[in-house]
Amino acid sequence: MTSEKVGLALLGLGRIGQVHLNIILSSHRTNLLWIVEENRELAETVLKGHGLLGKLRVVSNDKFDDILQDPQVKGVYVCTPTNTHTALVRKALTARKAVFCEKPLSEELADIKACYDDAEKYGATLFCAFNRHFDHGIRSMYDKARSGRLGKIYMVKTTFHDTPLWMGAPTFTQTFLIHDVDLLCWFADSLPDTVVVQATANIKEVAEKSDVDTVGALMRFPCGMLGILDFCKYSPYGYDVRLEVSGSKGMDVSDAKPVSYVKSYTPNGLETNPIHMSFPDRFDQAYRSEQEHFLDVIQGKAELEVKRVFSERAAIVIDALKESYKTGQVITLKK
Amino acid sequence: MTSEKVGLALLGLGRIGQVHLNIILSSHRTNLLWIVEENRELAETVLKGHGLLGKLRVVSNDKFDDILQDPQVKGVYVCTPTNTHTALVRKALTARKAVFCEKPLSEELADIKACYDDAEKYGATLFCAFNRHFDHGIRSMYDKARSGRLGKIYMVKTTFHDTPLWMGAPTFTQTFLIHDVDLLCWFADSLPDTVVVQATANIKEVAEKSDVDTVGALMRFPCGMLGILDFCKYSPYGYDVRLEVSGSKGMDVSDAKPVSYVKSYTPNGLETNPIHMSFPDRFDQAYRSEQEHFLDVIQGKAELEVKRVFSERAAIVIDALKESYKTGQVITLKK
Amino acid sequence: MTSEKVGLALLGLGRIGQVHLNIILSSHRTNLLWIVEENRELAETVLKGHGLLGKLRVVSNDKFDDILQDPQVKGVYVCTPTNTHTALVRKALTARKAVFCEKPLSEELADIKACYDDAEKYGATLFCAFNRHFDHGIRSMYDKARSGRLGKIYMVKTTFHDTPLWMGAPTFTQTFLIHDVDLLCWFADSLPDTVVVQATANIKEVAEKSDVDTVGALMRFPCGMLGILDFCKYSPYGYDVRLEVSGSKGMDVSDAKPVSYVKSYTPNGLETNPIHMSFPDRFDQAYRSEQEHFLDVIQGKAELEVKRVFSERAAIVIDALKESYKTGQVITLKK
Amino acid sequence: MTSEKVGLALLGLGRIGQVHLNIILSSHRTNLLWIVEENRELAETVLKGHGLLGKLRVVSNDKFDDILQDPQVKGVYVCTPTNTHTALVRKALTARKAVFCEKPLSEELADIKACYDDAEKYGATLFCAFNRHFDHGIRSMYDKARSGRLGKIYMVKTTFHDTPLWMGAPTFTQTFLIHDVDLLCWFADSLPDTVVVQATANIKEVAEKSDVDTVGALMRFPCGMLGILDFCKYSPYGYDVRLEVSGSKGMDVSDAKPVSYVKSYTPNGLETNPIHMSFPDRFDQAYRSEQEHFLDVIQGKAELEVKRVFSERAAIVIDALKESYKTGQVITLKK
Repeated sequence: MTSEKVGLALLGLGRIGQVHLNIILSSHRTNLLWIVEENRELAETVLKGHGLLGKLRVVSNDKFDDILQDPQVKGVYVCTPTNTHTALVRKALTARKAVFCEKPLSEELADIKACYDDAEKYGATLFCAFNRHFDHGIRSMYDKARSGRLGKIYMVKTTFHDTPLWMGAPTFTQTFLIHDVDLLCWFADSLPDTVVVQATANIKEVAEKSDVDTVGALMRFPCGMLGILDFCKYSPYGYDVRLEVSGSKGMDVSDAKPVSYVKSYTPNGLETNPIHMSFPDRFDQAYRSEQEHFLDVIQGKAELEVKRVFSERAAIVIDALKESYKTGQVITLKK
Repeated sequence: MTSEKVGLALLGLGRIGQVHLNIILSSHRTNLLWIVEENRELAETVLKGHGLLGKLRVVSNDKFDDILQDPQVKGVYVCTPTNTHTALVRKALTARKAVFCEKPLSEELADIKACYDDAEKYGATLFCAFNRHFDHGIRSMYDKARSGRLGKIYMVKTTFHDTPLWMGAPTFTQTFLIHDVDLLCWFADSLPDTVVVQATANIKEVAEKSDVDTVGALMRFPCGMLGILDFCKYSPYGYDVRLEVSGSKGMDVSDAKPVSYVKSYTPNGLETNPIHMSFPDRFDQAYRSEQEHFLDVIQGKAELEVKRVFSERAAIVIDALKESYKTGQVITLKK
Repeated sequence: MTSEKVGLALLGLGRIGQVHLNIILSSHRTNLLWIVEENRELAETVLKGHGLLGKLRVVSNDKFDDILQDPQVKGVYVCTPTNTHTALVRKALTARKAVFCEKPLSEELADIKACYDDAEKYGATLFCAFNRHFDHGIRSMYDKARSGRLGKIYMVKTTFHDTPLWMGAPTFTQTFLIHDVDLLCWFADSLPDTVVVQATANIKEVAEKSDVDTVGALMRFPCGMLGILDFCKYSPYGYDVRLEVSGSKGMDVSDAKPVSYVKSYTPNGLETNPIHMSFPDRFDQAYRSEQEHFLDVIQGKAELEVKRVFSERAAIVIDALKESYKTGQVITLKK
Repeated sequence: MTSEKVGLALLGLGRIGQVHLNIILSSHRTNLLWIVEENRELAETVLKGHGLLGKLRVVSNDKFDDILQDPQVKGVYVCTPTNTHTALVRKALTARKAVFCEKPLSEELADIKACYDDAEKYGATLFCAFNRHFDHGIRSMYDKARSGRLGKIYMVKTTFHDTPLWMGAPTFTQTFLIHDVDLLCWFADSLPDTVVVQATANIKEVAEKSDVDTVGALMRFPCGMLGILDFCKYSPYGYDVRLEVSGSKGMDVSDAKPVSYVKSYTPNGLETNPIHMSFPDRFDQAYRSEQEHFLDVIQGKAELEVKRVFSERAAIVIDALKESYKTGQVITLKK
């Protein structure tokens, strides 16, 4: 059975690394050969949780060359901190491994371009993990919009109210905004002509870091579509990701996803379960589906759907949003 | 029984005039003494529909002085075209009649101020019909936000997708935007510091008139609240008015209101009834409640809740949105 | 204006009498001429609440003959206790007044027949207040089922969880079960062939009276439709009336109706407003619509939709349910 | 890694066998050693679909003894037709293998007892696949009811509208009714005192087989809880499984589960995605969770939650329902 399993290496066992570990382990198409994690204690805890302590090879980053020379390794998952992505990705691509890299590839457009240049040069797959493209609901909305069944697209709105509060990056970074910006550009199939943000700080810890936590952004696209993005760095009620697409023939909406279907009728009203409190729960199906696609690409069963332009557009627009925030002005994007 | 009914005159039997005619007739607290409508054919059709042809006094506008001299008339409903409001309102206030005027009082801030100056000078009631304040759902959200139960308010979003397409006024007028702008200022209890819009034209007829039909606006308020408004001049799926309030303790949402509760499970999915297709249906309860309040104010049972500042703020902000649209810039409001 | 208003007398200002008082007062088609209420204190309180104390004629039942001789009175609303209905209804019909009688006409089938015999003999309208026929949602489900758009009807389910707990009548009476039984027979357009109930007592006060509070009933109809009824004498979460119709082409459902559209997302989950806590709120629209229909019938604008057979069928079936409860057996109805 | 994986054999690759094949393959805790399937063509098609053709050992039933002698096999999945269950289960238990058997163990109570007697005799695990106990929503409702948070339980209602139409067993068999009957007994924690059904045939193919397709059943439990079950053999709109629990403090409801969260607002109304069209989709999470529990029991990490009494009670009640259907009478269960 092993022969056709896809040999994999996983770099990083942090929050998102653990999500991918789960998903890799739950597929019979994968063969996890290496894990790279500097923090041995963390690695032990995680593996113990899976009953796999001592059964998976965990190494330090200095073994990365060995991994790249292992002919059984077909794909490398890069789940390390963002600022390490570019170097790891480029090295793996040079070794002609398929790379699955958590978003963003880099906060710098130049790095993103360099990664993709390498992918092209070495003919290797570079899969940037735009998981929302693989969420069945969002994907069905995209397909419907593309099909013309919503008519001319007037407006696309994305909502992202994050939880828990995470201070690891400023708001105007790809870390926080890449998914929503990518969705707007994806639906418009282009960069916007103009962008503008307005933002405020309502949370004490955020204000003390001179950051903002409450953001609205407007983007005007050449096709006439208006993009509206809203972001809260902290949501008290759950991990709230929404999408709304209005066109001349109707409107499609994907709302915050509840944890279960049970409704409780009480003397105080109707109560339903909380919505998902974190991204791994909200996007479980999407994470599984994107892995399937990555494996399909490696095995030659599918062409890569996650395009270079997705990463580049997101980087360009988020740079413009940052500039709008700093200058307080509407930004016109150069073509 | 008649003695304590409130004697009323109704000016205008157009779309909104007919709404108020219905509501006046369905109350046992009212006594409709005069109707002013130049279009006799229209008036006959409308009264015939109520079985009241020949039973209500319909006159031309040249009888307005007689109406104002009728001591039985305590209140005057102004439901004529916007550009006639100021003159009619001021005349009625001078005669010390309580005035119920459909929004907006005027597209000009100066006129609004003049109307309210007269109301103060003559001690007469001027009720500008901000009906959304009287919608039970919206009002409960306002009261909850004010009470602190949502914590610090981060963000308020209004959505208005209008139907049917009405070309009688450009988009950047109070006619279209007053309710949403008013709600944002009402929740923030102030003018915004900055406003900015982005807009596109997606509908042929609108584009041909050099107007826009798809609008997003951002407003930053001194309290830290971010206001986000979106507007579509034409909604194919119904009259869609929504409100969303996010705070540090939770989020309240008022969604598009369906016509009925019946759900149909079909081989193609779950179908529910359309949402309301027009404002009289959507805001039926609000129209009734605002009339009750107007009558209460006339009879000294309540103090007027619809403040002068609501009309003034809306006019100022909508002028700024217009300017932002024209200049393509973020507008900082003078204090 | 008065000439074409419909002159009315209202008998009884109890719970349901007050509901109809409200609705009569909110129509410009009605002219309420007499109110009969023995309890003067109650009458004063109610009229004061409407600001109508001293402005409506309230008399004792001994004036009923005067009322029936008043030629201005076209319609009589009978909202007194059930055991007084038959006598009042028959007297009013004999005087050729149109009668609006709250359900049930009587707990006895023989009385119901006598009332309708009089209505036929004197050519007078007898309107038994099956208000659910006038609820827009329920009516649209009925019309759809009749139209064939649901295909062959397999199953109709009614749910009625009442609130507040009312001990004024035993469970197996028309008082509690008439609406649900009527709906099942209405959808099947016939009496059932067999009926059976199972019931338990879960509430102490109910058990102490040797009554039951939790009921399920099954009815097999000649057309193949299966009727399922469930009833709880006390619902802690609101007045819960539901209807579900399954057929070969789909299923229609009318759920418990919420008080408002506001949804609250909290750290504990999504909370919406309570459902209506009483029948006047739940069926406000239906009460208004049934009054319109009664007035239309009086004025010759419509034919009476509430048929004699509705009352007779409900009485027959509820007698059979009672027998099933007493004997613990399945009851076959005689044809 | 292999050493602690649980070695498994899977008997039967029909509809439900394929469901379990998927779930076994998606776990890193399992090692599927044998598949038994007589239909070689079917087996090839299924394995090809997983890319596993030639990589899993597929044998005929005459190799069952070899399988039972394989010390690596710890658990046996019995997914063959119902009438083969008892023999296979008992044989596997005698070999002291843990057995996971699809429901029902048998249509005959005596067989069920014999299986469990063997399980006890040989100290082997017998897991009857009551998957609904493992559905998160249903389980949370059960836990809440048990905790007292719903107060005294008045009524539990189950709805099962099946799809597609499957004529492989008559309606009054465990095949169709076991889950709903089990849930009612589970919530009441006992057998009912009385049961009664009413049923009709609305579908031509069903009527031609002298079977029924539309069923209502009532069950009165000693604790006062009333159970109401409704069943349609064919649902045109999806696989519809619902549960409703009413108590003195509130009501919990688990509704038909939609395929996705996307809502489409159209000129004809609000449309949402279809509900799940088959049991593997509806209960995907439950199937995964029940496997986890089975593996936990095998590895000594948990005690078996699926009790002998569940199977026995369901068999007893379904026999009584069948008798009620045949005699047309209410059945009192012997204690």
